[in-house]
Amino acid sequence: MKKKIIIGVIGSSRCSSSIAEIAYMVGKEIARKGAILICGGMGGVMEAACKGAKEIKGMTIGVLPGDNKETANAYVDIPIITGMGEARNIIIVRSSDAVIAIAGKYGTLSELAFALRFDVPVVGIATWNIDIPILKANNPKQAVDMALSAIQKTQGKY
Amino acid sequence: MKKKIIIGVIGSSRCSSSIAEIAYMVGKEIARKGAILICGGMGGVMEAACKGAKEIKGMTIGVLPGDNKETANAYVDIPIITGMGEARNIIIVRSSDAVIAIAGKYGTLSELAFALRFDVPVVGIATWNIDIPILKANNPKQAVDMALSAIQKTQGKY
Amino acid sequence: MKKKIIIGVIGSSRCSSSIAEIAYMVGKEIARKGAILICGGMGGVMEAACKGAKEIKGMTIGVLPGDNKETANAYVDIPIITGMGEARNIIIVRSSDAVIAIAGKYGTLSELAFALRFDVPVVGIATWNIDIPILKANNPKQAVDMALSAIQKTQGKY
Amino acid sequence: MKKKIIIGVIGSSRCSSSIAEIAYMVGKEIARKGAILICGGMGGVMEAACKGAKEIKGMTIGVLPGDNKETANAYVDIPIITGMGEARNIIIVRSSDAVIAIAGKYGTLSELAFALRFDVPVVGIATWNIDIPILKANNPKQAVDMALSAIQKTQGKY
Repeated sequence: MKKKIIIGVIGSSRCSSSIAEIAYMVGKEIARKGAILICGGMGGVMEAACKGAKEIKGMTIGVLPGDNKETANAYVDIPIITGMGEARNIIIVRSSDAVIAIAGKYGTLSELAFALRFDVPVVGIATWNIDIPILKANNPKQAVDMALSAIQKTQGKY
Repeated sequence: MKKKIIIGVIGSSRCSSSIAEIAYMVGKEIARKGAILICGGMGGVMEAACKGAKEIKGMTIGVLPGDNKETANAYVDIPIITGMGEARNIIIVRSSDAVIAIAGKYGTLSELAFALRFDVPVVGIATWNIDIPILKANNPKQAVDMALSAIQKTQGKY
Repeated sequence: MKKKIIIGVIGSSRCSSSIAEIAYMVGKEIARKGAILICGGMGGVMEAACKGAKEIKGMTIGVLPGDNKETANAYVDIPIITGMGEARNIIIVRSSDAVIAIAGKYGTLSELAFALRFDVPVVGIATWNIDIPILKANNPKQAVDMALSAIQKTQGKY
Repeated sequence: MKKKIIIGVIGSSRCSSSIAEIAYMVGKEIARKGAILICGGMGGVMEAACKGAKEIKGMTIGVLPGDNKETANAYVDIPIITGMGEARNIIIVRSSDAVIAIAGKYGTLSELAFALRFDVPVVGIATWNIDIPILKANNPKQAVDMALSAIQKTQGKY
């Protein structure tokens, strides 16, 4: 049985409409490629990405910090309820074959750091501009292509 | 969008063939009812249940204690990688609409305790016989029926 | 450098005054023996045990489920802030050389299960009466003596 | 009862001898000021800082990623055993009144991010040079002074 590719989308629970539009298109592109989208399950970038994926019947997983599924955004198919607050950031990153960071604040920075720590490929759009080896994408389609290409390289499996 | 029911299967990573047979049939029944199966993703009861679910193309989630997906049994569709050891037991229980305990040792006892702590309905087959309010089932089909019925009662949604 | 013995006290955050009295005396006895007391840092059994330990200037550690130190009871010297809810139960048990369970509900049952899972000696006073290999004590002094004796046996170090 | 100040020291488990010397002096200075040192309990920066604190009988806490106390460095007084891998980074940061980052790689970057996320003051020596609001210190004594001063400002309590 071949497992489906899982791509993480990380970003803030509140964001501008232009960032939400990017997240929406990233989610849609992930679904179009047949990959599963995993994220933190909340609002902002997470909600927009899940909405995009559901638009074309993709599958979405939300790894929630809180202790009940009602906190998930409306586009999460499978709520994973941790009750562990921000420790859930680690689970999102570890469970992803690659992550796409869209803008984001300190929570996103922690996820970028964990992705690099665990050798999970990271693609960034309009995100933290620091001296770390992440791939920079200019648009949603390119971001997903870069993520899939990085997964293929590291795991030889897409 | 209506979320699918998620049923947890808890039990040991090593078990007798008769317990494995029960787990297999529980997994199959969960899939037949259209519910998603969530478990710890390892061997024994978990593997047998996942195998049963996949037999009829159900969906399986494995919440892994370790730090890579290679540790999941072959029948896990979606590996959630926690890297948090037994703390993942809590995530399995919290993410389940109801759990079915099959035999089991101390890890399973911790999960029973958390299920009761978090008001998640528990059905037991050949499991810990202690003075706690869990539903007792005599066979796999009854176990899944009792779980679904308990979910309907608490959430009004199956 | 020889590390001090650390003894966990587990029990509910609400309890009767007679259970609180037992917890208070257990805490005092732990301190009298020169051991460090670790617990969940909240009220009830935890608060009474910490109060007993501080009565004679023992040291107390509270591993908190919440996200700030203000939630600790007034007798906690060192608040360890997890923000991980009940997952902190595992940390209390793992960090203890032995645990003493005083009465308790489902949270305590989960801790008993983890202690047995991780081979941490457990002494119970008026706690869960199930078919598990825990030592039963009749009074606070005996409980602490049994804990220290079990630690000596397993670690050869008290 | 007034709780002692707890200062976190974060940095890599392997480091150059010059970074270790800085960490040693930071640990010593923390102890000299009467504060408790908390860290990840492993080698490198953590071990050097603990060694410095113990030099003058300070107290040291090590929040370990692994599942037994034998993994702690020799200068840890109180090993807190999480068994949760890198999720323990969050506990170190949350339990600190302020953190001092010394050099460091991706694990340290995750801790910086969490500190900023949780409003824990951060002082950096020779650490990540990115556009985040952390205080920059030039030497160990200044780092500890800045940490204590930041704690006083935010909590009004040193």
